Amino acid sequence: MTIIMDKIVIQLICPDQQGIIAQITSILYDCKINILSIEQHVDDNEKKFYIRILADLKNANIAFNQLDKKISVLNNKLNGKLTFHNPTKKSNVAILGTKESEPIYDLLIKKKAGDLNCNIPIIISNHNNLKIISKQFDIAYYKINNNNELLDIFNKNNIDLIVLARYMQIIPQNIIEQYKNKIINIHHGFLPAFKGPNPYRQAFEKGVKIIGATAHYVTEELDEGPILYQDVVNINHKHSVNEMIQLGRGIERNVLYKAVKAHLNHKIIVYNNKTIVFN
Amino acid sequence: MTIIMDKIVIQLICPDQQGIIAQITSILYDCKINILSIEQHVDDNEKKFYIRILADLKNANIAFNQLDKKISVLNNKLNGKLTFHNPTKKSNVAILGTKESEPIYDLLIKKKAGDLNCNIPIIISNHNNLKIISKQFDIAYYKINNNNELLDIFNKNNIDLIVLARYMQIIPQNIIEQYKNKIINIHHGFLPAFKGPNPYRQAFEKGVKIIGATAHYVTEELDEGPILYQDVVNINHKHSVNEMIQLGRGIERNVLYKAVKAHLNHKIIVYNNKTIVFN
Amino acid sequence: MTIIMDKIVIQLICPDQQGIIAQITSILYDCKINILSIEQHVDDNEKKFYIRILADLKNANIAFNQLDKKISVLNNKLNGKLTFHNPTKKSNVAILGTKESEPIYDLLIKKKAGDLNCNIPIIISNHNNLKIISKQFDIAYYKINNNNELLDIFNKNNIDLIVLARYMQIIPQNIIEQYKNKIINIHHGFLPAFKGPNPYRQAFEKGVKIIGATAHYVTEELDEGPILYQDVVNINHKHSVNEMIQLGRGIERNVLYKAVKAHLNHKIIVYNNKTIVFN
Amino acid sequence: MTIIMDKIVIQLICPDQQGIIAQITSILYDCKINILSIEQHVDDNEKKFYIRILADLKNANIAFNQLDKKISVLNNKLNGKLTFHNPTKKSNVAILGTKESEPIYDLLIKKKAGDLNCNIPIIISNHNNLKIISKQFDIAYYKINNNNELLDIFNKNNIDLIVLARYMQIIPQNIIEQYKNKIINIHHGFLPAFKGPNPYRQAFEKGVKIIGATAHYVTEELDEGPILYQDVVNINHKHSVNEMIQLGRGIERNVLYKAVKAHLNHKIIVYNNKTIVFN
Repeated sequence: MTIIMDKIVIQLICPDQQGIIAQITSILYDCKINILSIEQHVDDNEKKFYIRILADLKNANIAFNQLDKKISVLNNKLNGKLTFHNPTKKSNVAILGTKESEPIYDLLIKKKAGDLNCNIPIIISNHNNLKIISKQFDIAYYKINNNNELLDIFNKNNIDLIVLARYMQIIPQNIIEQYKNKIINIHHGFLPAFKGPNPYRQAFEKGVKIIGATAHYVTEELDEGPILYQDVVNINHKHSVNEMIQLGRGIERNVLYKAVKAHLNHKIIVYNNKTIVFN
Repeated sequence: MTIIMDKIVIQLICPDQQGIIAQITSILYDCKINILSIEQHVDDNEKKFYIRILADLKNANIAFNQLDKKISVLNNKLNGKLTFHNPTKKSNVAILGTKESEPIYDLLIKKKAGDLNCNIPIIISNHNNLKIISKQFDIAYYKINNNNELLDIFNKNNIDLIVLARYMQIIPQNIIEQYKNKIINIHHGFLPAFKGPNPYRQAFEKGVKIIGATAHYVTEELDEGPILYQDVVNINHKHSVNEMIQLGRGIERNVLYKAVKAHLNHKIIVYNNKTIVFN
Repeated sequence: MTIIMDKIVIQLICPDQQGIIAQITSILYDCKINILSIEQHVDDNEKKFYIRILADLKNANIAFNQLDKKISVLNNKLNGKLTFHNPTKKSNVAILGTKESEPIYDLLIKKKAGDLNCNIPIIISNHNNLKIISKQFDIAYYKINNNNELLDIFNKNNIDLIVLARYMQIIPQNIIEQYKNKIINIHHGFLPAFKGPNPYRQAFEKGVKIIGATAHYVTEELDEGPILYQDVVNINHKHSVNEMIQLGRGIERNVLYKAVKAHLNHKIIVYNNKTIVFN
Repeated sequence: MTIIMDKIVIQLICPDQQGIIAQITSILYDCKINILSIEQHVDDNEKKFYIRILADLKNANIAFNQLDKKISVLNNKLNGKLTFHNPTKKSNVAILGTKESEPIYDLLIKKKAGDLNCNIPIIISNHNNLKIISKQFDIAYYKINNNNELLDIFNKNNIDLIVLARYMQIIPQNIIEQYKNKIINIHHGFLPAFKGPNPYRQAFEKGVKIIGATAHYVTEELDEGPILYQDVVNINHKHSVNEMIQLGRGIERNVLYKAVKAHLNHKIIVYNNKTIVFN
């Protein structure tokens, strides 16, 4: 099968060594592939090298399958881990929520404005509260009774990315394994402080002066997955728990949107339970 | 003894009830005392009322001692806790440090610019690194070998406020008791996350995207005292621990300065291990 | 007619003088009216005093009409300007837009979540693009051809507050006069920099490192009315004008929401083309 | 003369075309030069390509002079503008001030802490107020009567970078020409708003809710040079002009420090009166 792409994202992780950039960019140059942006990072502790290249294939003198082979040869030589992504292909996103509507609205509005490169075919919930949103935006709504129903729904809808937009349920382990680094959760606290339920109440009782929200990939340990984005807002003694919840909504939707956008644009590399988010 | 003041700060805490503001402001009005600012807060959970009044005594028709009596009668009726402060009187501040110079410089520069209403007669350290600062700013320097020497030094210098500007030592319990809500510490982490030593390394290893600093009053439990100010700065995967330390210095000095300033201006009320910081 | 209210907001502006707080709070105390919050400000340049009181009338021993008389007598004595507001009464808000949907969605979502104390009966536009939103949220949509149609629509719908959510049209002067300090505009620039059209292009060409948005009341002079809220976001050389527009949307909706909320909660006092926004 | 360097910064600007990165990194690879970081930018409007490479010469198989030749040949082919910088060489910085001490203190403290890679041999002022600082930090102090004295002083002290730390004087045109993109000014306003004197008073009178500071290179037109950094702080109706000045100091020193640091680390490229500041 011949794969046709206009643009390509190349991500490569390998032990740090000389000449990586020269070798990979020389291949692209030889193939008349134009680099649109290049971002690299060296982790001095781990002696690891990370690169993300966005390139334009319009004038390439080679098919993607041939390019794949050439770069894979280099990758083997570098002892690396290589992935290609098609940045113009739309991912299929499932949004899971409970009762909170604002982060879901935000994703749908951003998608409608063309700010998120994806399809959002389904909203899933264990409640009926969010059905109105699915009607407003003409999206299929799955009211589930049990998380065991999830995997089937994901499979039927060819879901690439699962977004937990304040979904107050534990995701089954088999789904976490199958969708490794493909489930984004929004936690309404500044992790690693205030894990678990009711982070705003915890923050209120502690008397902190800043509250936060954290978007992260979901791993088996609750609220411990690699962090993608965080944002904060100042509070003071006047803010009740309810006012903190209101204020917090603004930063929750913000970090969730940014995390989803970075994921869809293939800007994230995960290593050691941490992330590189190229900007 | 007759106390003469130009201005006065009145702080009152009492069970919430009707007419507190009317009664206290009526006393001031009768005494021809002009209110410059009034800030109040009701804690709906605790049913507690908090008020801070800054008043001008210039045209008062009454001596302070008489005013004290009148308001104390009201305070007893309200079942409250009343304190008076003289906002123009300069507090004596002791700065304790170890090797880090930046937060100390900052306090001295702000004081020199007239931004802090205090004297800073002494710097205390268990090292010699900060001696140069004491020379530059012509301040007595105490190099101590043991924290048991501290209390004597505080007493001899009539210290009102103790500032721990990255003083990496545990303060003896008798000092904490004697200087209750009069010891301000700067912790180089976003409490309650990252307590204890090396918060930046903890943050690096966790892979957070924001780091913070916290100014708080010192209590017997390490890094658990009432929080006064917090500030944060964004980081990403490129920041090494050392770069986080560099970046962090900027927010550390900032929250410490703000906390010291609010304390010196009698803007802080402590309750339930939390603070009200009037602005 | 007897007006029945649960709560009341009292705003008073007068020349600064002694005893204002004592006199007004004493009236409330005598009437068994409980003060929920009190905020005051003295402008030392103008020698003006501003106060906002939120009070609970539940246990009052007096009807509103009587209270009005009592406080009006005081107001005359103080040579002041007094206004009463019913904080539980919902204002009628008209939203005007052109093609940009995000700030409108945001207001509707916040209203639906109970974060805005108002009705939003109508959306008005000179285009059809926003009609879909009015359908989604079941709100009347007026497609107008001429701004002269506006006043009639406002009158028919008893509009209290007009919100220009990126409405790229000049509002007729008679409406500005009739709705003085009742028309809120969002300008997508950091006023007073970048007035007029295309502020993001202006910012791009100037090479600024921060862009902003400004919510303000509309006056006869374009983009010169009293400022209510401002917010900013960092940019750099990588941001194209279109990316600045995308980023800017986030702060535009944010300042507009905050401004509308403060207005609806009667937290704003205008003087000298500037605002006091109590928090 | 043979130039010996441990590390090198290469900056190249040229018309955008294919293969730039491949060609330049291949030269470095052939010479066994290790790339530590690479940052590039394409300006789609101007069709210009910008790159900054930081490389380690430790294991290079070539002298700098030879490398210079090789890359210059490429540069000619690309029709580019090429500059090399030695990142470990310390620049000589002159600080000019008037009365304001805080931004000067800040630069000296950051230098002392090792956060600024430079020498600061001289402070110049048209007043005596800052002499105390030069004594504290053991730096030569020049009290000048006329800006015509400046150039001589710069020449005698081999000054590479001139920092205007609130120097309220117009710099002579011949100095601006000679030190093109080597004079950094801190303006205490959010440019392009509030140019000229008393920006805080202008901001106060306009009633803005955010104030800012701007670091920029000095050009012949006052406050119009390419912007390097900007920062802001929220204010409200309570802030007097003097309180705005106090608050503003914190952001002024911050943007000045960041701008000086980026300049010293050769992270800035100027084009079209705008800047690329690599991070």
